[in-house]
Amino acid sequence: MKKITLLSLFFIGSSVLYAQKSDEQVLKEIYKSALTNSKCYSWLDHLSNDIGSRLSGSTNAEKAVLYTKSEMEKLGFDKVYLQEVMVPKWVRGEKETAYILDNKTKTIVPICALGGSIATAPNGLTAEVVEVHSIEELKTVGIDKIKGKIVFYNRPMDNEQIESFHAYSGAVDQRYDGAKEASKYGAIGTIVRSMNLRLDDFPHTGAQSYGDIPKTQYIPTAAISTNGAELLSKALKSNPNLKFYFKQSCEQFEDVLSYNVVGEIIGTEHPENIMVVGGHLDSWDLADGSHDDGAGVVQSMEVVNIFKNLGYKPKNTLRVVLFMNEENGLRGGKKYEELSLVKNENHIFAMESDSGGFSPRGFSLECDTANFDKIKSFNSLFEPYLIHSFVEGHSGSDIGPLTSKKIVKAGLKPDSQRYFDYHHAANDKFNAVDKRELELGAATMTSLMYLIDQNGIIE
Amino acid sequence: MKKITLLSLFFIGSSVLYAQKSDEQVLKEIYKSALTNSKCYSWLDHLSNDIGSRLSGSTNAEKAVLYTKSEMEKLGFDKVYLQEVMVPKWVRGEKETAYILDNKTKTIVPICALGGSIATAPNGLTAEVVEVHSIEELKTVGIDKIKGKIVFYNRPMDNEQIESFHAYSGAVDQRYDGAKEASKYGAIGTIVRSMNLRLDDFPHTGAQSYGDIPKTQYIPTAAISTNGAELLSKALKSNPNLKFYFKQSCEQFEDVLSYNVVGEIIGTEHPENIMVVGGHLDSWDLADGSHDDGAGVVQSMEVVNIFKNLGYKPKNTLRVVLFMNEENGLRGGKKYEELSLVKNENHIFAMESDSGGFSPRGFSLECDTANFDKIKSFNSLFEPYLIHSFVEGHSGSDIGPLTSKKIVKAGLKPDSQRYFDYHHAANDKFNAVDKRELELGAATMTSLMYLIDQNGIIE
Repeated sequence: MKKITLLSLFFIGSSVLYAQKSDEQVLKEIYKSALTNSKCYSWLDHLSNDIGSRLSGSTNAEKAVLYTKSEMEKLGFDKVYLQEVMVPKWVRGEKETAYILDNKTKTIVPICALGGSIATAPNGLTAEVVEVHSIEELKTVGIDKIKGKIVFYNRPMDNEQIESFHAYSGAVDQRYDGAKEASKYGAIGTIVRSMNLRLDDFPHTGAQSYGDIPKTQYIPTAAISTNGAELLSKALKSNPNLKFYFKQSCEQFEDVLSYNVVGEIIGTEHPENIMVVGGHLDSWDLADGSHDDGAGVVQSMEVVNIFKNLGYKPKNTLRVVLFMNEENGLRGGKKYEELSLVKNENHIFAMESDSGGFSPRGFSLECDTANFDKIKSFNSLFEPYLIHSFVEGHSGSDIGPLTSKKIVKAGLKPDSQRYFDYHHAANDKFNAVDKRELELGAATMTSLMYLIDQNGIIE
Repeated sequence: MKKITLLSLFFIGSSVLYAQKSDEQVLKEIYKSALTNSKCYSWLDHLSNDIGSRLSGSTNAEKAVLYTKSEMEKLGFDKVYLQEVMVPKWVRGEKETAYILDNKTKTIVPICALGGSIATAPNGLTAEVVEVHSIEELKTVGIDKIKGKIVFYNRPMDNEQIESFHAYSGAVDQRYDGAKEASKYGAIGTIVRSMNLRLDDFPHTGAQSYGDIPKTQYIPTAAISTNGAELLSKALKSNPNLKFYFKQSCEQFEDVLSYNVVGEIIGTEHPENIMVVGGHLDSWDLADGSHDDGAGVVQSMEVVNIFKNLGYKPKNTLRVVLFMNEENGLRGGKKYEELSLVKNENHIFAMESDSGGFSPRGFSLECDTANFDKIKSFNSLFEPYLIHSFVEGHSGSDIGPLTSKKIVKAGLKPDSQRYFDYHHAANDKFNAVDKRELELGAATMTSLMYLIDQNGIIE
């Protein structure tokens, strides 16, 4: 099955050469290559500044597919190809407007429709507001007080958490399930405090789901900026009968055809064993998605660029997969798994970068104890690069569906403090990503990929 | 000698209470207090946005003295006082201008005078340029080719370094000693590539010294932005005879009176043993010095605010010292040591935060092996807070002069990747500091201060 390609010829002797080098030496070369000879930052520049936001089904998402395919074709893969996948197409429409109507005073506040929400009536929606701090609280408040009103979810992300992702997990049910649940109590709309640890004026969008409630019970739902949420809450305290107005014209269309972008280097020794590294090509529509997940896309491509610069050809088959539609459907991740099952492929390792392009700190690992301990034992190799955190936890959404006889999954774990300053908001732009932090993340991913390729996983 | 104060009364029982708590519990409370109940970010807001840049001898520096003294007086110190110190007063004057004159084409480039530089003649200075990459290279080039020209130092900071401070150390001699050395070869001015790992348009100022060369041999020196340096270097390759023009009107005045700000809590058990925590109040003049070193100032104050919130009174005497004139003279640090010697004080510990308000990673320690090992053994206590790096190295410039029978010195070590994006440049502003990162740094400092206070140092 081993395919002889130009790249293989180019890399003849690679295994022999690398057998003579210590892991310390190779990691040093990897980090040097990333910091002095990488392409990821200029790829991100193009994705962010020349293409821009890449919501599934949008023209920009298609541009990103073509651009990354074309760039990957320059990297010396054995093959680069597209995987067809049908994706949802949700369109925001014209910019949302909202205000607090307190007696006759209108105070404009920044909102944005949540992904998948329906529109309000064309002239908007006005109603009284019930503030709650959890979905459970709906029950306490009761249908009589909720019916015909807007439910305002205002539980902040928990600032006590050291890892911002833990604070996110503890609050995001309000965004994802809030509308569906409030609808059951007769609410006619929901407003959700943005998933943001800061107080600022950016509303943060993100996926929401009506689950299996009937379409007739769908209600419009939007995020309000954290400052807006504070303001609304304060205003409600002095006038519980104030009204809230919002207008949004978003729309869900039929699914459209899109693609995962895949690049493959066939392994020199174990072509049947596949290692995946990836991020997601789609982004929310409010900004360029430079952290979420432009960073992960270009870092995954950089893994191969670094191997190319080092003249290293992996023993196992290496695939870079740029997944489509992580944000509002995960169709790309599911499709990749579906096709993999059909071909009866054997994945041994999958790594995703989808936590922003910040200074890398370690890996979040999904695997058994034996493999966890093995990866953790690489700790000292990573110490010179300030990589120290090897924890069990979520690896990545796109590689989530992937199953195999035995698979180790890893998520790059960057410093998380600033992630939710930008997440799904209009400020997730190129200038929020630091070149060196992005490059160090790519080097960290490449290093683990190299170590897994050399050492295998414990079957 | 133990002074009974209101604060002491307030804290009666503090030692008993804390003897019953595990270190794990206390650190948890410290981080919680920092992330949910801190003042450091609003102090920084005032220092940056209401006061602004604080170069020694400026009105703003004096405002900062008064402001921090007044805020410290609200924190329940036993005493807050000023230490008089004479500081240099250097004034930039009107904004510098510079251009490359290539035949008849003028290309404007961003420069700024280096701190301590003399002015050019009122109508500026025009000369041919000799590009070098090190001070040593002056010798190779020789006096004949340098005399009457501008020396352009263009060795970039080394991007291969993982820690940006190492890259800085490897390049900053060009800025600090460049003018003095070039003058010896007859240069009439120097232009230095900014100490910045990025390519951008910000010139970065910083201290330079003419050392002991005669005043008649002083030559004007300025930093050029990294993009400007690239442009000039490229232009020189195609036309080695191009000329460079720059004009600056900076001036060195007589020394003026300024102050260190000191707050003191007298130790409950060992009042004779002093622990210092501090940062420097002065900043360069191009921006607000939010990272350098507004962050260190407010984090040092926050240490006491956290202890106050926790009801913890230290066993040893704790001093917060906000040093004046770190940037261009270190007079505050030297004066503090001088006064300490006169009073025959015994310092056991000194900690400085002067590496930016970024996510904390650990400590850089100056002490003997026994104390280093002891502090490193706190590693596991810090692990939940992602603090992992305990290294031997520079602690802080202001605490540098401090001597004592036996002293342990520590520098907070934040993530260093973005520090030189802002260092001494016009973008070192409040919005470049993340609230949570700043607070986590303060918590990390407080935690080490607590552990040293509880465990002492190895004499």
